[in-house]
Amino acid sequence: MSSSIDYYFDFSSPYGYLGSTRIEAVAQKHGRKLIWHPILLGAIFKVTGQAPLTTYPIRGDYALHDFKRAAREHEIAYTQPDPFPIGAVAASRACCWLKASTDAELNAQLTPFVHAIFKAYYVEGHNISDTDVVLNIAQKLGINKDELATGLGDQSVKDALKSAVAQAIELGVFGSPTTVVDGELFWGSDRIEQVDRWLDRGGW
Amino acid sequence: MSSSIDYYFDFSSPYGYLGSTRIEAVAQKHGRKLIWHPILLGAIFKVTGQAPLTTYPIRGDYALHDFKRAAREHEIAYTQPDPFPIGAVAASRACCWLKASTDAELNAQLTPFVHAIFKAYYVEGHNISDTDVVLNIAQKLGINKDELATGLGDQSVKDALKSAVAQAIELGVFGSPTTVVDGELFWGSDRIEQVDRWLDRGGW
Repeated sequence: MSSSIDYYFDFSSPYGYLGSTRIEAVAQKHGRKLIWHPILLGAIFKVTGQAPLTTYPIRGDYALHDFKRAAREHEIAYTQPDPFPIGAVAASRACCWLKASTDAELNAQLTPFVHAIFKAYYVEGHNISDTDVVLNIAQKLGINKDELATGLGDQSVKDALKSAVAQAIELGVFGSPTTVVDGELFWGSDRIEQVDRWLDRGGW
Repeated sequence: MSSSIDYYFDFSSPYGYLGSTRIEAVAQKHGRKLIWHPILLGAIFKVTGQAPLTTYPIRGDYALHDFKRAAREHEIAYTQPDPFPIGAVAASRACCWLKASTDAELNAQLTPFVHAIFKAYYVEGHNISDTDVVLNIAQKLGINKDELATGLGDQSVKDALKSAVAQAIELGVFGSPTTVVDGELFWGSDRIEQVDRWLDRGGW
């Protein structure tokens, strides 16, 4: 049994954002360590035969409405970003670089960085597919912009993200967010409360 | 403002079944009339470009696991049916026939019939795509089997189902179940509790 909660998300997924604002409280309540796993849905959709949510007729319009309604229910700031969806490769690689660092201070920046990227995109309307935007967000958190820029080009960092996506697929992750607790996958921001109940009851 | 709760579902949808066991309590709590709307996802998927859930790689395996897990959470009897999915044309047309009848006793049979069809498929393992199975279920409820058999062949009944599916698409229904309250659509069995909160709070 792992004592962690693993949270898989794509920065370009509104539900990934909405869940990111609530999953830490669940982890804290149950004494679990939260592990962030940025992934790229584009790569996963190639395997599963799915497409970005908002590209489906009818379902896409519902999703655009539901993003905002779900945000209002949980009192989470949300503005539908444009462009949308975007490729979050740079932001996701930056997470891999922070995770892989031997500097504990950089490791500790991962959580604030995840929240800052989400906020930049879903609250402030910045285009986080732009590497410069990602670097500036990192800099504001006190992360050395030049070191990060170099890191984003490292083959090891690129490989780490590829490997993370492959491992997520292997685990059975097909959407964002997916929360993994003790080997159980829960897909959806609307399942965060179910994860809480699962931990309350020790499963069912 | 409508005073009803409209519940759109495909008999072949496990989540449609799981939601059907909980939606009446929500309607009753809020003094709303519940209206059952059987639809055919096959026709809807042609418009939305989706496919049956369990046909998607990875996502399909998750769904098969989640059906059972969701049933356990709510203590709903559930056995994964085989064959699955099936075409629920006969059962859905039977609902249209019950709805359209000028006999109030037949109208009143709609709710027991919906539950009996779901139970036959998801608890007792009967193949509800078979018209004879549907007729026998109806007969057990005291519905005249021969009259229903004749009704299933009526063009007006066939047209009523086609029209119901077209109206659902027009309304924005793309999945099962979809609960509609005061013009708001909520997709998913896992959103039944959100519908309850929506009514508690008068929206948000």
